[in-house]
Amino acid sequence: MTESFREVVALHPHPTAVDRDALLRCIEECLDCATSCGACADACLGEDEAEELTACIRHCLDCADTCDATRRVVIRQTAADLGVIRALVQACATACAACAEECRRHAHHHAHCRVCAEVCGRCREACEGLLAALP
Amino acid sequence: MTESFREVVALHPHPTAVDRDALLRCIEECLDCATSCGACADACLGEDEAEELTACIRHCLDCADTCDATRRVVIRQTAADLGVIRALVQACATACAACAEECRRHAHHHAHCRVCAEVCGRCREACEGLLAALP
Amino acid sequence: MTESFREVVALHPHPTAVDRDALLRCIEECLDCATSCGACADACLGEDEAEELTACIRHCLDCADTCDATRRVVIRQTAADLGVIRALVQACATACAACAEECRRHAHHHAHCRVCAEVCGRCREACEGLLAALP
Amino acid sequence: MTESFREVVALHPHPTAVDRDALLRCIEECLDCATSCGACADACLGEDEAEELTACIRHCLDCADTCDATRRVVIRQTAADLGVIRALVQACATACAACAEECRRHAHHHAHCRVCAEVCGRCREACEGLLAALP
Repeated sequence: MTESFREVVALHPHPTAVDRDALLRCIEECLDCATSCGACADACLGEDEAEELTACIRHCLDCADTCDATRRVVIRQTAADLGVIRALVQACATACAACAEECRRHAHHHAHCRVCAEVCGRCREACEGLLAALP
Repeated sequence: MTESFREVVALHPHPTAVDRDALLRCIEECLDCATSCGACADACLGEDEAEELTACIRHCLDCADTCDATRRVVIRQTAADLGVIRALVQACATACAACAEECRRHAHHHAHCRVCAEVCGRCREACEGLLAALP
Repeated sequence: MTESFREVVALHPHPTAVDRDALLRCIEECLDCATSCGACADACLGEDEAEELTACIRHCLDCADTCDATRRVVIRQTAADLGVIRALVQACATACAACAEECRRHAHHHAHCRVCAEVCGRCREACEGLLAALP
Repeated sequence: MTESFREVVALHPHPTAVDRDALLRCIEECLDCATSCGACADACLGEDEAEELTACIRHCLDCADTCDATRRVVIRQTAADLGVIRALVQACATACAACAEECRRHAHHHAHCRVCAEVCGRCREACEGLLAALP
């Protein structure tokens, strides 16, 4: 896909002191994770045994909401508040870890859960990477 | 305004063990806070000296995104993950506290900032109230 | 609930020419509808026969996403683009009408669907009221 | 960036009859556009002459909110309502066209606006492509 947002982030008049690579990796993984979780919740809902996937749907919806909010906040470089960013990225890592764990339970029966668990795992790592890069 | 969501929450087939009043208060304040912050960011943007309100706009946008995500997650009662809820409500309290502090700086010059600071303060309290009520 | 956002909207330095009552009613109903739909999707997911409520869950999720985006856009009074507002409020009315229709099918078995259908109907009316009030 | 969501979409138990390529292109461009618009609004806010960019910030915020909602809705394949999808994708095309036009006005002075105008143009085309592909 096109990734013009990388360019827009780089063209900010007063770029953040936060490590650019860690920032962009967190944004990218939040995008893929929010979208994959939205698609996985929907795929689970379409399965014949959807009632066994109730917790998985719930985790995916929570994770998508948290990733979307986190991506929206961390991309802003003007007048950043590191305390707010830290708390939200930490919450995002928590949501991703919980969703990855639940999706893994269904990975053998549902390939969409297997893929989603992997994305959630990567997004958790990207969040932790950004947390480690914050001053 | 109508508050039918209170009824829908009460009609859930398997209501959460979390204290209903603390839950609803958090949802209500997140609704008012997300909406007030969105309106305050927009009012700041419309002021003649918008450049002095840059940090205020930024805080309001962050707070609105965090409140919307938090409200979406905490209203779900099916298969709740308390660790995820706790981390996100904590992040929301942090965003509200930071936004209240910044809005208060402009309260004497801009009445919308004064009102917004009050809403953010109430939402932070409601988030802390829910955190205290979680098992 | 507190409705401080009404005050913040009224304190905008350059208020919109759009009828204030129609605007606020649309915002309020979008808030109640997005939240009620989120709660109804979750209640449906928690029902024993969730598989019969698949379409209802889908409609509620779509309606919540559309109402949240619509409320975020219409509350902004600075540099408003009526063409954008019109298209989005129209889409919101469409989503509300479709969700109301689907929820009504389940109203006799599930009280949360009955209440949600009513909110969606009111939100559709508020959207149509705002459309009629646009210059 | 990783694009696991493409895989999750493909693994849905009952894939939509809608053309997969048109669907995925719309999702991808909505992701890039929402994120680029968020970053452009923030870059504009950080410029010294932010007051000349007020309309641009407003358009970017509206476009980001509309793209995020559209992407969330169109990725769902279970029990899709074509009327809702059509209205929302149409609103998204409208928001993208308006934002592209405003960003283009500032393209010579601000490279982030030039890039953002291009993304908005592509997203509008992707929305129109999906509209043309709907049955």
